[in-house]
Amino acid sequence: MKIGFIGLGIMGKPMAKNLLKAGYSLVVNDINKEAVAEVVASGATEAASAKEVAQQSDVVITMLPNSPHVQTVVLGEGGVIEGAKEGLIVVDMSSISPIVSREVAAELVKKGVVMLDAPVSGGEPKAIDGTLAIMVGGPGETFKVVEPILQVMGSSVTLVGEIGSGNTTKLANQIMVAANIAGMSEALVLATKANVDPEKVFKAIRGGLAGSTVLDAKAPLVLEGNFKPGFRIDLHIKDLQNAIDTASSVKTPTPISNSVIEMMRALSSDGKGSDDHGGLVQWYEKEAGIKVRK
Amino acid sequence: MKIGFIGLGIMGKPMAKNLLKAGYSLVVNDINKEAVAEVVASGATEAASAKEVAQQSDVVITMLPNSPHVQTVVLGEGGVIEGAKEGLIVVDMSSISPIVSREVAAELVKKGVVMLDAPVSGGEPKAIDGTLAIMVGGPGETFKVVEPILQVMGSSVTLVGEIGSGNTTKLANQIMVAANIAGMSEALVLATKANVDPEKVFKAIRGGLAGSTVLDAKAPLVLEGNFKPGFRIDLHIKDLQNAIDTASSVKTPTPISNSVIEMMRALSSDGKGSDDHGGLVQWYEKEAGIKVRK
Repeated sequence: MKIGFIGLGIMGKPMAKNLLKAGYSLVVNDINKEAVAEVVASGATEAASAKEVAQQSDVVITMLPNSPHVQTVVLGEGGVIEGAKEGLIVVDMSSISPIVSREVAAELVKKGVVMLDAPVSGGEPKAIDGTLAIMVGGPGETFKVVEPILQVMGSSVTLVGEIGSGNTTKLANQIMVAANIAGMSEALVLATKANVDPEKVFKAIRGGLAGSTVLDAKAPLVLEGNFKPGFRIDLHIKDLQNAIDTASSVKTPTPISNSVIEMMRALSSDGKGSDDHGGLVQWYEKEAGIKVRK
Repeated sequence: MKIGFIGLGIMGKPMAKNLLKAGYSLVVNDINKEAVAEVVASGATEAASAKEVAQQSDVVITMLPNSPHVQTVVLGEGGVIEGAKEGLIVVDMSSISPIVSREVAAELVKKGVVMLDAPVSGGEPKAIDGTLAIMVGGPGETFKVVEPILQVMGSSVTLVGEIGSGNTTKLANQIMVAANIAGMSEALVLATKANVDPEKVFKAIRGGLAGSTVLDAKAPLVLEGNFKPGFRIDLHIKDLQNAIDTASSVKTPTPISNSVIEMMRALSSDGKGSDDHGGLVQWYEKEAGIKVRK
């Protein structure tokens, strides 16, 4: 089975390399020629366009920044759809709007092409280790065909529902992470401003109902003022905007996401968009005029 | 060492009984005569007022609903302060405003009485089991004196700082719990409204960065529509109000707490104030016109 891989960024490049290591035959494309050269050196072949990738593949994986890139690369001029033969499977692993996932899939199906949306969670280290969490939407029989491929890249691969469900699940994930980071930040800045050692607060409460993966992973970094990414604030803004847009389309409220995206936008305007999302605490620190430090 | 115990409610009664079981001599007082009779039957003696409790005690523990009750019982007519001899230790285990903790302690110190604030986390089951998390503020030497008493009631007893720090830590805890419940609710209602099975979302993401004690403890109840308390929404409103008041006094922002308290107040007005705080999801469900169910 020949796999096409389009999008060799921070996430896509190690994912493609893991597929090569697992013995899959890969044809790749990216606008970044350096990344292409690196993956070709690992055993892939290059195609000149998304269309040519599709012509040579049984399964095309796309790993792109956001919805418009997926629309262009899959449906645009010289895109996947132009090179697709009937029976091709497209697995879009980008984190995009589930509405766009459904729209792109609906266009592909007219050419006999089935699409899955399969966004990932875990960031660059887990992309390198092949231990991503992969949330998949689409038909069960198509999922079964590509499941072994996905398991090369992820340690948890879950079919959650029909097309778009993967991205909806990813958005649910990102809403919870945003809320947990904001709650932690609000609490630690209040404690610090009220003259209580934030490290003692962290240690006193982490074992109780306030405990979370975010608290364990991010509080120690907040206490050091270490906001090296990790997962960038600008990417979390993108995900929250997709969540808010999706919520708007299905008419459900998102007051917490609305609050957090405002804080993140203010930080991005302040030049901190490339900080880790744990750096959200800096919004509170600036407002309160103190820093959370041990 | 003779211990006075004032406030035999849902939390105070099992805490007092655990002290009796551990062999401490207890003198108790409460306006609820039934609760007093039950604890007296377990071996305590009754005193007619807070003043009389203080007259007979080396350490007085108070476990009361909120700040005004502590002010009245400790500083009011017939209160602890009237019966206190120099050297008495007051341990207020109520969850109240840290500002009020400091004010009450400042009055007591004029009579040679040292106060600790030592609010708890964990709810009725952990009060019964003696496994509460206890967050303590006050002088280290006083903490050392009462630490063995606190360890009868809690499995985690942490001195976090000076007087008021216990309640500040508790408020930090409650802010994080509120944020995590709201994030979970916002995410699960969005997923449900977007036609994705919320149970599959829960299972797909609980092991990643969105994971939390709140998610593991509350999502299964949300999926069953089970909002039996647990910890009541009306009590969480009290805690968030204390957090917001404290934040206001030290000039730090609380946008997430402000959002969540609004949702909780709306639910309380709707007759749901006695539901578990996991029932916050009902605010989203009502707005979105659906229910999160498996």
